[in-house]
Amino acid sequence: MRTTVGIVGAGPAGLLLARLLHNAGIDSVVLESHDRAYVEQRQRAGILEQGTADVLRAAGAADRMDREGLRHDGIELRFSGRRHRVDFPALTGGRSVTVYAQTEVCKDLIALRLADGAPLLFEAEALAVEDADTDRPRVRFRHRGVEDVLECDYVVGCDGFWGIARRAVPAAAARVFERTYPFGWLGILADVPPSHDELVYARHDRGFALLSMRSPAVSRLYLQVPEGTEAQAWGDEEIWDELERRFATDDDWKLERGPITQKSVTPMRSWVHEPMRHGRLFLAGDAAHIVPPTGAKGLNLAVGDVVTFARALTHLRDTGSAALLDAYSETCLRRVWQAERFSYDMTTLLHPAPGATPFEDRLQLARLERIVSSRAAETDLAEAYTGFPFG
Amino acid sequence: MRTTVGIVGAGPAGLLLARLLHNAGIDSVVLESHDRAYVEQRQRAGILEQGTADVLRAAGAADRMDREGLRHDGIELRFSGRRHRVDFPALTGGRSVTVYAQTEVCKDLIALRLADGAPLLFEAEALAVEDADTDRPRVRFRHRGVEDVLECDYVVGCDGFWGIARRAVPAAAARVFERTYPFGWLGILADVPPSHDELVYARHDRGFALLSMRSPAVSRLYLQVPEGTEAQAWGDEEIWDELERRFATDDDWKLERGPITQKSVTPMRSWVHEPMRHGRLFLAGDAAHIVPPTGAKGLNLAVGDVVTFARALTHLRDTGSAALLDAYSETCLRRVWQAERFSYDMTTLLHPAPGATPFEDRLQLARLERIVSSRAAETDLAEAYTGFPFG
Repeated sequence: MRTTVGIVGAGPAGLLLARLLHNAGIDSVVLESHDRAYVEQRQRAGILEQGTADVLRAAGAADRMDREGLRHDGIELRFSGRRHRVDFPALTGGRSVTVYAQTEVCKDLIALRLADGAPLLFEAEALAVEDADTDRPRVRFRHRGVEDVLECDYVVGCDGFWGIARRAVPAAAARVFERTYPFGWLGILADVPPSHDELVYARHDRGFALLSMRSPAVSRLYLQVPEGTEAQAWGDEEIWDELERRFATDDDWKLERGPITQKSVTPMRSWVHEPMRHGRLFLAGDAAHIVPPTGAKGLNLAVGDVVTFARALTHLRDTGSAALLDAYSETCLRRVWQAERFSYDMTTLLHPAPGATPFEDRLQLARLERIVSSRAAETDLAEAYTGFPFG
Repeated sequence: MRTTVGIVGAGPAGLLLARLLHNAGIDSVVLESHDRAYVEQRQRAGILEQGTADVLRAAGAADRMDREGLRHDGIELRFSGRRHRVDFPALTGGRSVTVYAQTEVCKDLIALRLADGAPLLFEAEALAVEDADTDRPRVRFRHRGVEDVLECDYVVGCDGFWGIARRAVPAAAARVFERTYPFGWLGILADVPPSHDELVYARHDRGFALLSMRSPAVSRLYLQVPEGTEAQAWGDEEIWDELERRFATDDDWKLERGPITQKSVTPMRSWVHEPMRHGRLFLAGDAAHIVPPTGAKGLNLAVGDVVTFARALTHLRDTGSAALLDAYSETCLRRVWQAERFSYDMTTLLHPAPGATPFEDRLQLARLERIVSSRAAETDLAEAYTGFPFG
């Protein structure tokens, strides 16, 4: 098999990249190790920055998002029983975010890809990226039991933190930055309308809690839990009781309960792989960087990466200049580090760390107090939440 | 001896409080353990917030400050060889700071106090505050070898972190918050005009450096050094060489050298004593809170405390209401914790910590990058630097 761009991984990064390249008239092959049902069902992020939604629209992949997605003009911060709304459009000159699950973005992009008749291979497990530092990189893969080779001009690794693409970068050429956190998120899906019409980020002495949603009928809620917690260790009523405690307010706001349909624990990690390019292998999305979910940045960073790559490759084809492609890693990393910073700050702002000193507790409250009392500090948060500019 | 307000300590907090009370027609006695020459010579802070300068003016204690103090409309941030000016008035609606040494503030306030013929006892060592929880608190002290007692309606402890006032608060009634840092500042005074007309805060891989000044002819410079460093361990040329390295820029800026007239090491600590009141004993300034010097907040916090106390006591006398006095601790602590937060943030922003991970290094650079590229983030810094509102 032969293509211009070999794409490893059919998550949102790989699928969107395939779409952007297709629209630009550049052919690609997408290899995905799982089957279609798995890709269309795994629960991940759900907040699209203004810029991400705009990219999906420009790519002609936003019809259902525009019908079913929920435009959110703010979030609520909750601490010490108090509620404070951060008004995004008022603070950022009109920007907002869209609540639309990553799963749905993937379904839409898969449907478009298949309708185009463009190559997207499920159950095609990439085994290795080879010859990345030549001008004929290859992906060895096994498709339904049969080994094959994809010969490419470029390979883009969109296969996540656990993927194989980044292993093709020699250790001496890479530098890794990491931070782990001594807690995770216990997430649930519940068949109950969200108890608030925007996301609620709650800082409580007992731990962080997040109220989110998938649709007007489905709530998505999270609890900070100690590292290593098993989802099944928590009973359903126990989860609701704990959520109720952490979301408690001074007014008559009430948390509605409903049947829990899914439970899982997400670990928290900050991680960056530098550079994001080795020869003709480019890393995008979780293959190059992980953020803790508190800032809702993971999916949006991936979108930024593939937009940067597609633009750079189109520029090379149209002008003969590789300048943008050569700047890929640097361009992406500027945005990545701002998102890493913001995700770290949101995480440490809202999660009481086990073993935190009383000084650190007070500092956390002073930070929240600052955000709700200074328009400058609040704007800083709103700008970051609604998204840093691409490239 | 008997007075309305017994003031322990003749640093800027105690001296300014005595002045404010005198102007309001409330009598006080100031007890200071050192002699006058010592108080007038010890080197401390040198940056007065807009609000602090305004308070000194309103108190009639600013004639020399207005003649000799230097108005600064910004600071420079320096990192990765780059220079970025933070323009205070443009970002805060006209606010600025004044460079005028704490020593000079003390000299001015001492001269006024003595000219008024109001009691200010040097070499009067406070031994204990007694009966703080009654309505007749007392300060036992030794004045030039003779023990005496000062009977008061109120006692204000302005005697710093090492003072005796706070020891009168029973341990069970107090809570202490603390953070230490594994580095300190080696500070020098040098007879050379400052190499830049505003303060320069430099973050360098080798450590933080600060360029400040006492006057148009005297430079004040600091180097981050490991905890426990002795000032005399550094030779003069070694200090200038290291300053030169840390202030290095991409342009032709040059550090001027001159004779070093004083060398000392300042440890770094964050510390808060809650509450700031016990019965009729009130704590103010360093007796209640310490900040690392990076945010230039120590002196300014002390001023906020004594302004709050003087206003509250005047309010009680004029209206019979103790509401403001009862709220003293809470009112001060709101401002204290914002200053603690800011001082901590400025410190961690600019000092590479020994043993910092590569992730933390990148985070530090991403924070600096954010401040110099977002008007909101820059405004947040400028607002905090020029000062949080009193009360």
